[in-house]
Amino acid sequence: MGDTVIGFGILGCASIARKVSRAITLAPNATISGVASRSIEKASGFAKANSLPPDAKIYGSYESLLGDPDIDAVYVPLPTSLHLRWAVLAARKKKHVLLEKPVAVNAAELDTIIEACEVNGVQLMDGTMWMHHPRTEIMRHFLSDTERFGQLKTVHTCFSFAADPDFLKGDIRVKPDLDALGALGDAGWYGVGAILFAADYELPKTVTALHGPVFNEAGVILECGASLLWEDGKVATFNCSFLTNLTMDITAIGTKGTLHLNDFVVPFQEHEASFTTNSKSGITEFMTGWVSLPSEHIITAELPQEACMVREFARLVGSIKNGSKTEKKWPTRSRKTQLILDAVMTSIKRGYEPVEIVS
Amino acid sequence: MGDTVIGFGILGCASIARKVSRAITLAPNATISGVASRSIEKASGFAKANSLPPDAKIYGSYESLLGDPDIDAVYVPLPTSLHLRWAVLAARKKKHVLLEKPVAVNAAELDTIIEACEVNGVQLMDGTMWMHHPRTEIMRHFLSDTERFGQLKTVHTCFSFAADPDFLKGDIRVKPDLDALGALGDAGWYGVGAILFAADYELPKTVTALHGPVFNEAGVILECGASLLWEDGKVATFNCSFLTNLTMDITAIGTKGTLHLNDFVVPFQEHEASFTTNSKSGITEFMTGWVSLPSEHIITAELPQEACMVREFARLVGSIKNGSKTEKKWPTRSRKTQLILDAVMTSIKRGYEPVEIVS
Repeated sequence: MGDTVIGFGILGCASIARKVSRAITLAPNATISGVASRSIEKASGFAKANSLPPDAKIYGSYESLLGDPDIDAVYVPLPTSLHLRWAVLAARKKKHVLLEKPVAVNAAELDTIIEACEVNGVQLMDGTMWMHHPRTEIMRHFLSDTERFGQLKTVHTCFSFAADPDFLKGDIRVKPDLDALGALGDAGWYGVGAILFAADYELPKTVTALHGPVFNEAGVILECGASLLWEDGKVATFNCSFLTNLTMDITAIGTKGTLHLNDFVVPFQEHEASFTTNSKSGITEFMTGWVSLPSEHIITAELPQEACMVREFARLVGSIKNGSKTEKKWPTRSRKTQLILDAVMTSIKRGYEPVEIVS
Repeated sequence: MGDTVIGFGILGCASIARKVSRAITLAPNATISGVASRSIEKASGFAKANSLPPDAKIYGSYESLLGDPDIDAVYVPLPTSLHLRWAVLAARKKKHVLLEKPVAVNAAELDTIIEACEVNGVQLMDGTMWMHHPRTEIMRHFLSDTERFGQLKTVHTCFSFAADPDFLKGDIRVKPDLDALGALGDAGWYGVGAILFAADYELPKTVTALHGPVFNEAGVILECGASLLWEDGKVATFNCSFLTNLTMDITAIGTKGTLHLNDFVVPFQEHEASFTTNSKSGITEFMTGWVSLPSEHIITAELPQEACMVREFARLVGSIKNGSKTEKKWPTRSRKTQLILDAVMTSIKRGYEPVEIVS
């Protein structure tokens, strides 16, 4: 009885790895079996600072961790430009791959990673935590409700944060050789993912970058936006930025309902999250108010969303160990997100022309 | 002591006139002195149905009302295509003009109206009610606060409502000869106005329509959007629609703060309205929540916003009667809004090319 406990290796000691280490510890079906850095001192320091289990092994190279037979899965928080090399090698070593976003520099590299995972029968999932919050599924029910929400017509999302001067100078996310997609790959990953979530993962027909992206001196995007258009006429816009106050909005508007939330990436509070909806909204006769006020839906969460992510990933890995196939849903979603990011980049390069999405 | 009471004439019995009649009655410095329709029966029916004062005069033509020396000001809810003719004639008859939005078919016609009002020394104001809600000024304080909000960088607005089949078939707002701007002139007027409000009425450099506008069979816009770009790099997007659930959003993001509200056109409730702000928002160390929750600012309103509008207009008219000059702020704002609507139309016609705004 009980779930199989999956042993995780952590490939690199980026600051996001601290959060995911905590999540692995919190997830009931996962444990940290090892950590690797390019220096054994750094790995050892990480293990101590983050209270890793005493039996977790410390590795001074990524290769050595990947050779450890006790490790079932790896969490990869390395800079995006290193994902291709290490995710593919992990797959070849039969390690399941929980890959930090943005998953790749472009869809072609991601396809190589996906193929390596498929060939080797390992699960691939990207590290988008909010997808695993229980709130997300409840919002999905609302968006799928033909009576309360109707047909989706318009989505707007925004994820921005005001990066400090150190970040803007030295973070991997502003370095062209490490995270070439900049704010688009980092913050934009969430905004695009939220649009796809609202559209139930139907790809748009065209993506058009908005005028006015901001670049740093090295040519990396610090802020940009785009508009998306679907075959059926649905439209979406998003904005992503390293230069403005922390904002995490989804507004999804259907023929009969509206959904709002302002904390989709990280809920305001760890154990409780909410969103608001309106359905068949109307105005009083003299337009002095709304016929009904928005409804707030409050969801309690026993585990933080990152632990829910680890639990779901470990559950899939456990199933695969017991003979199930890999779950294609997650790499498919990552790939659709990546296709749109690529199209935004292409549209900017082509002077804000619409770019067709070819799946 | 006491304000001068301004006598209003109502030029046409559109359904919006019912709301504004109530507002004139509620405003302490205004009264309804007359109502005109193209038929005296219709005007008389309107007076009865809306409990107009017993001494209000009933006119069977707009011209006759404009000839009444007891009438200081007119409220003009006629279809947009008739604004040029009747607003100009009203100004020539020395009537102050409260003009329903969209104020004109295009900026050239509006300029003729503005000139007629200036030459004749009468006040022009458009009927955008939310500009007069006390909440609006308090939001302006937040947006101007360099500590709490910083510099404006991004704005998104949306105003949409799900028009019923009768509206989509027969309302003046979907008829090319009456309200040629359709949803852009009606709902879009608000979204554009809210963007200008957030930008403190600085005009953008370019306006680019988004791909995917929806037209009816007569070629009138039922849904569209655009992106705006300022000289200093500020960006804005808006969406307006007759086809989606009632939604009235402003999201304004600065370098240090964010403002949200979801009922900017008509507050959820008549006597109380709110908006939320975040300032210098941050995430906890393990990204498990926000450092501080959004603040809700609640504003009580003694009068509904449309009565505040009438009160302000009547106050200006009273000042002019006492020798003051007309207030240029209001026609200037109307004109800036109209310039942007015109640019959206031009951009759509030019295949979504950016259109420069020339003031």
